[in-house]
Amino acid sequence: MAGSVQVGLVGLGTIGVGVARLLLEKRSKVFAGDCGPVSLKRIADKDLSDRGIDLPSGILTEDVSAVLEEPEIDIVVELVGGIEPARTFVLTAIEHGKHVVTANKALLSAHGEEIFRAAQKRGVDVLFEAAVGGSIPIIRALRESLGTSAIRSIYGILNGTTNYILTRMTDDGASYDAMLRAAQQLGFAERNPVADVSGKDSLQKLVILARLAFGASLSPEDVLCEGIERITPMDISFAQELGYRIKLLAIAKEREGRIEARVHPAMIPLSGLMANVKFEYNAIEVVGEEFGTQVFYGKGAGQRPTATVVVSDVIDLASRIHSGAPTCRVAPLLASASGVQLVPAEELFLRHYVRLEVFDRAGVLADIARLFAEENISIESVIQKGRAASDTVPLVIMTHEASEASIERALRRLSTLNVVRGPIQRIRVEELE
Amino acid sequence: MAGSVQVGLVGLGTIGVGVARLLLEKRSKVFAGDCGPVSLKRIADKDLSDRGIDLPSGILTEDVSAVLEEPEIDIVVELVGGIEPARTFVLTAIEHGKHVVTANKALLSAHGEEIFRAAQKRGVDVLFEAAVGGSIPIIRALRESLGTSAIRSIYGILNGTTNYILTRMTDDGASYDAMLRAAQQLGFAERNPVADVSGKDSLQKLVILARLAFGASLSPEDVLCEGIERITPMDISFAQELGYRIKLLAIAKEREGRIEARVHPAMIPLSGLMANVKFEYNAIEVVGEEFGTQVFYGKGAGQRPTATVVVSDVIDLASRIHSGAPTCRVAPLLASASGVQLVPAEELFLRHYVRLEVFDRAGVLADIARLFAEENISIESVIQKGRAASDTVPLVIMTHEASEASIERALRRLSTLNVVRGPIQRIRVEELE
Repeated sequence: MAGSVQVGLVGLGTIGVGVARLLLEKRSKVFAGDCGPVSLKRIADKDLSDRGIDLPSGILTEDVSAVLEEPEIDIVVELVGGIEPARTFVLTAIEHGKHVVTANKALLSAHGEEIFRAAQKRGVDVLFEAAVGGSIPIIRALRESLGTSAIRSIYGILNGTTNYILTRMTDDGASYDAMLRAAQQLGFAERNPVADVSGKDSLQKLVILARLAFGASLSPEDVLCEGIERITPMDISFAQELGYRIKLLAIAKEREGRIEARVHPAMIPLSGLMANVKFEYNAIEVVGEEFGTQVFYGKGAGQRPTATVVVSDVIDLASRIHSGAPTCRVAPLLASASGVQLVPAEELFLRHYVRLEVFDRAGVLADIARLFAEENISIESVIQKGRAASDTVPLVIMTHEASEASIERALRRLSTLNVVRGPIQRIRVEELE
Repeated sequence: MAGSVQVGLVGLGTIGVGVARLLLEKRSKVFAGDCGPVSLKRIADKDLSDRGIDLPSGILTEDVSAVLEEPEIDIVVELVGGIEPARTFVLTAIEHGKHVVTANKALLSAHGEEIFRAAQKRGVDVLFEAAVGGSIPIIRALRESLGTSAIRSIYGILNGTTNYILTRMTDDGASYDAMLRAAQQLGFAERNPVADVSGKDSLQKLVILARLAFGASLSPEDVLCEGIERITPMDISFAQELGYRIKLLAIAKEREGRIEARVHPAMIPLSGLMANVKFEYNAIEVVGEEFGTQVFYGKGAGQRPTATVVVSDVIDLASRIHSGAPTCRVAPLLASASGVQLVPAEELFLRHYVRLEVFDRAGVLADIARLFAEENISIESVIQKGRAASDTVPLVIMTHEASEASIERALRRLSTLNVVRGPIQRIRVEELE
């Protein structure tokens, strides 16, 4: 109980500045609980230039080992991002007996097992509320309250940038490219938006949630991941006509002892809660054995909320250190010994929206319907739009549930037909609440 | 650390049986964390008849003091409900140094201050996650994660029965009475539904949330509270036409250092998240200084979720007792010393939907518009329906923001006009997300 809990910070970017400011000023309500004294001891960054923040002299250093190996430091906050050198920094901090707070989803999704095992062995804690869902306390909810229920499924809108772009495309009827540029101008998308629009950011968060919910240690590269780049205003308009909205979903669910995990654009019912999650907001629907459906909704990012969440993890640890309560809580994060198997993508069994451009000739629909029948895919409905100025017309087919393998085969065969022109669009359908 | 944490249960009703079963069988995932041994030592109920649960012999007693005063018991779970004798039981348990877990919203809303002060004095804890929002971990969220942000407002759909009735009225175009009966038949409403439909249940939950969010110790009887009994299918249909849905809302918000608190049916925008909370589900929207808007959604009641939530509070306490961590966490629940003032109802400043039946004569609208103008209420839009078979027609007026006092005066004056027949309907409008 003697003295102050000492914090070291590695990485003084936007979030780092926010965290440093909170820890130095201690004026936020995050300090309202009785966590005992906490001090920011040291900050390491390879760039020592001014960040517009008043730091006590001597606190900032280029030498990262002055944080990671400093015996007086109890908690290391890692805000470097990316995999290396962040991985080495975190493992070094753990090795030196420090607790770690991080917002690094790339690192935890790729090397979670290694990091949590190292923490378990050394008896230190790793907290990472800011890694998923921004200000939404989903990590805490899954570790605590929802942890009392076996979890059946998680459906998340986990990326604010793509949700912003899809919302604007829906509201304005505008193209993906135009709305991506708008999002960039407004600061909702980065100059290089690939990690967001490709679904990779959602995938990293999904892998972390699947570990919490199912004890699964998934490798991101094994999980089906598709982005939103190919979604067109025409798809959004057909979705609306069919009673759906298009969202980038991250899905993990239990399926007969295995885990189905995937990230892709999906059509979800217009009238549901998830379809009404708009702009940069995130939402996570968790279905539990005891609780049924729960949804958590909030802002997915931003300097101030993220820094506050990081500091609240620091405060959580500080109050446990001061009170003498056990701090190491990583055991439930280790992959279950039996291992959890991923359902291969070919075995997915879903409804599909398929949109093609076809030449406007008699018999085209019959040919296409026969092809679906041959692949054992039954058709639920067809929208064939009236004759256009051009010589092709869009044809939309909604299928009943079919295996991914059959759909893939049907799509390959469709693309070779003479009556079909240009790329074929396929969007999976989810009957979400 | 030696031995098992001993639990005593008072009240063996539906939830009590669920809690006893979980504590005896310990097969639920609620026990998955390492909370150390927990045993159910004693159950008191004034009725010893069979409940369809196998209890170890001698565990059930009519003598409540055998639970409340038993030195070996660490945690008392109060599931008696209502105010007395529950209040005396809880205070007696606290006096004997026991931690308390309760789901009793009536008790905590009426006597929260007394109970939390007694607990603070005796150094014991009082947990009550099951009192608000059923399976939604809103109490924990407000105490922990959201506690890091100053809270601006809370908007809740806190009662499953009324939300079920309003949803069915909307979907089926049916009357309140018919849908209340349907809800009763399906077990979503009690035989005596007054506490639910009058808004009283929502009010009790709101008072608890206002304590957590604002440190306010509100008296339920001081808070404006209106039920859903007067909502008609016609109002629901006009709401839809105007782009709104009618929900029973419980609202608490900070307004220049005072608290505005109220429970009443409200029109909220159709396209928002809260308007899409359907059937028996609950949802709570919290707006925080740091985080912006967050929404928590889930089932509001049910034996299994409620019992699980109660047991998770028991487990929380047991693991703290075993680990030697401080248990008493009621300090932030005590009313702030400065006191928090309630904004008087007359000072509310809202938009209103007003529906009247008027005789279909020339000049009626002019008379009514003049009356609103004289009360300084400006009109946003008017819907006057075409001539009906009867000699009166409905007239709907949407106002701009106006003080409650002006609206009340206008409604009183309207009811005296010769051209107006029958009761006047008034529903407040909230521009919720």
